[in-house]
Amino acid sequence: MPSNPSAMFVQSAISNWELIIKRATAVFDRLSDEELFAEIAPGKNRAIYLLGHLSAVHDMMLPLLGLGERQYPFLDAAFISNPDKAIPDLPKVEELRGYWKNINEVLVGKFRILQPEEWLQKHTAVSDEDFAREPHRNRFNVLLNRTGHVQYHLGQLALLKK
Amino acid sequence: MPSNPSAMFVQSAISNWELIIKRATAVFDRLSDEELFAEIAPGKNRAIYLLGHLSAVHDMMLPLLGLGERQYPFLDAAFISNPDKAIPDLPKVEELRGYWKNINEVLVGKFRILQPEEWLQKHTAVSDEDFAREPHRNRFNVLLNRTGHVQYHLGQLALLKK
Repeated sequence: MPSNPSAMFVQSAISNWELIIKRATAVFDRLSDEELFAEIAPGKNRAIYLLGHLSAVHDMMLPLLGLGERQYPFLDAAFISNPDKAIPDLPKVEELRGYWKNINEVLVGKFRILQPEEWLQKHTAVSDEDFAREPHRNRFNVLLNRTGHVQYHLGQLALLKK
Repeated sequence: MPSNPSAMFVQSAISNWELIIKRATAVFDRLSDEELFAEIAPGKNRAIYLLGHLSAVHDMMLPLLGLGERQYPFLDAAFISNPDKAIPDLPKVEELRGYWKNINEVLVGKFRILQPEEWLQKHTAVSDEDFAREPHRNRFNVLLNRTGHVQYHLGQLALLKK
């Protein structure tokens, strides 16, 4: 057993998160501003919606993980509470691209300084009583879950490839 | 720190795998045999291809993780080495549905008996020398990566929903 196995499990999960964020960022960077307004399939979400949606979900990870206040709560109306195309006025594309990069930088900076035992602490959406019964509702589980959420939408964005 | 933090990190990752497999199985079960032949988007992979592809990739996890011999190597021609529709003769749908359920049962049974320190051991596609330099190329990393691979294709299968 390595000297600090817990640190290795955490490091694997953070590296996996970083890899997936890098892939998603590369996909968004490759799409022009106009291409972002293409639907991933006829009648389905546009890439711009997925960019805003993922940014908003990641912004929510700050309070969910107890790592800080939200930076972009105003994204929720267009990208969380409503489906694509329900809200006609979206933030400028350039701004959205910036939110995405910034929130992911902020998150990974905070991930890197959390100690392994802090990853096993409860996230803020679970009560002390529930956490006593369900210790898997911890920060680590949120990290795995949100990594998978990016991959889910990456599979959809891949359909835009020619 | 819980008494066995390593076991908790491993348990989280296995639970996440189980959850995602359950979701994917529910999607495949909900699709009729005919619906499995629908494309997830015009000109893209059919659901049947994703069922065979995921089954073959999971079958490959047995030797990759050093947990046994492959059960369905004959799936590779239609679902790994070639794109969808390149091979006209596919296994019967009913057989494919069975392979998917069986390989996932076999895998999770083996996952549950691996000890935390065994998850940090190298997978079989990396040499001893490379593993000494790159200790993240371990079984745990394969588990995270393959969980994300299912989620990638789940995002695509979700487009078939009416």
